[in-house]
Amino acid sequence: MSSAQTTIDIATRGAGLYEFTEEARGFVRGSAVETGLLTLFVRHTSCSLLIQENADPDVRRDLDEFFRRLVPPSNDPSMRWMVHTTEGPDDMPAHVKAALTAVSLSIPVMDGRLALGVWQGIYLFEHRDAPHRREVVLHLGS
Amino acid sequence: MSSAQTTIDIATRGAGLYEFTEEARGFVRGSAVETGLLTLFVRHTSCSLLIQENADPDVRRDLDEFFRRLVPPSNDPSMRWMVHTTEGPDDMPAHVKAALTAVSLSIPVMDGRLALGVWQGIYLFEHRDAPHRREVVLHLGS
Amino acid sequence: MSSAQTTIDIATRGAGLYEFTEEARGFVRGSAVETGLLTLFVRHTSCSLLIQENADPDVRRDLDEFFRRLVPPSNDPSMRWMVHTTEGPDDMPAHVKAALTAVSLSIPVMDGRLALGVWQGIYLFEHRDAPHRREVVLHLGS
Repeated sequence: MSSAQTTIDIATRGAGLYEFTEEARGFVRGSAVETGLLTLFVRHTSCSLLIQENADPDVRRDLDEFFRRLVPPSNDPSMRWMVHTTEGPDDMPAHVKAALTAVSLSIPVMDGRLALGVWQGIYLFEHRDAPHRREVVLHLGS
Repeated sequence: MSSAQTTIDIATRGAGLYEFTEEARGFVRGSAVETGLLTLFVRHTSCSLLIQENADPDVRRDLDEFFRRLVPPSNDPSMRWMVHTTEGPDDMPAHVKAALTAVSLSIPVMDGRLALGVWQGIYLFEHRDAPHRREVVLHLGS
Repeated sequence: MSSAQTTIDIATRGAGLYEFTEEARGFVRGSAVETGLLTLFVRHTSCSLLIQENADPDVRRDLDEFFRRLVPPSNDPSMRWMVHTTEGPDDMPAHVKAALTAVSLSIPVMDGRLALGVWQGIYLFEHRDAPHRREVVLHLGS
């Protein structure tokens, strides 16, 4: 088997979780690979990748809220120590949240399908408030 | 070389770290691969993977305690903002702890052996209080 | 394609971020691989890997500061619960910070180049105060 690669564009409309499980599944299906490894890589430093529960939307809401409370905007009184503030109060916290989560993830492909658990969905975790166009590279290898 | 895959079942008895370094080593040894990459993937959203010190058990105790203090149960007064509480006070914090650690990890295989450092052990990090049966997929590729 | 591997040694001089993007690029270039996957693996439990902004150095300064505030030294009054203190007040916090960030990262290689975004640099994140010699294994596979 040789490797296959593609890039997915995700348009975000503010902070939160954006699912792209179906796009990843479609890429694996189109490759006709039976046994392999799908690696996702996000080409940015203020958003990240997350595999989380795709059932109750409150889980995503609470995840997002936890990170907001752990890393408040840099104009919050508790964050006055932050130096990198010129790109907006949500920028430096976005870098921190990205550091606390994942820039790359790998999921085995078994019998032609992603080995995701029943409740696992794949998300882009946007940490900036303004809309952004985000690129995720998908690499399907052996 | 073609890829090899297997699934390891881990029975947990409450929150904490469960080592499975030997199971991973055994899988690599059985494959007779000299140069490759072992990827671990956990099929759940309320437990995660961790490579940490396998020497002093107090390190694991303190790691577990840090995460308990950072993300208290949803019935703790400080966590009253949590919405997803129907599956128990330990459920939503488990999702958060999983998001803060790893769903997948990759370890090079050199000269037929995992390139782990002397003090590195591989652990399933269980975040739920009740016993669970957890699945970790092992993918050994090139 | 067969896999290529190498080990990079990084000498640290206290906590902070040490960039090694150029070393990783050089390894990929030397391999003449057009399409592949580069995986980085750090062989320690008190430092970690991070892909973050390589433009404004204040971003690295603030990242380091965030983690210092989130996980203070074990002789800080707020951390009196820590048990593993014999290796110094910076040791157990170093394990925690390593658990919160990455032990392994994978970056696709497209058209012979790492698919890093424009602002992404690769860093070793040292969490110990004393100088250390750190090993990062690079695995370039398919």
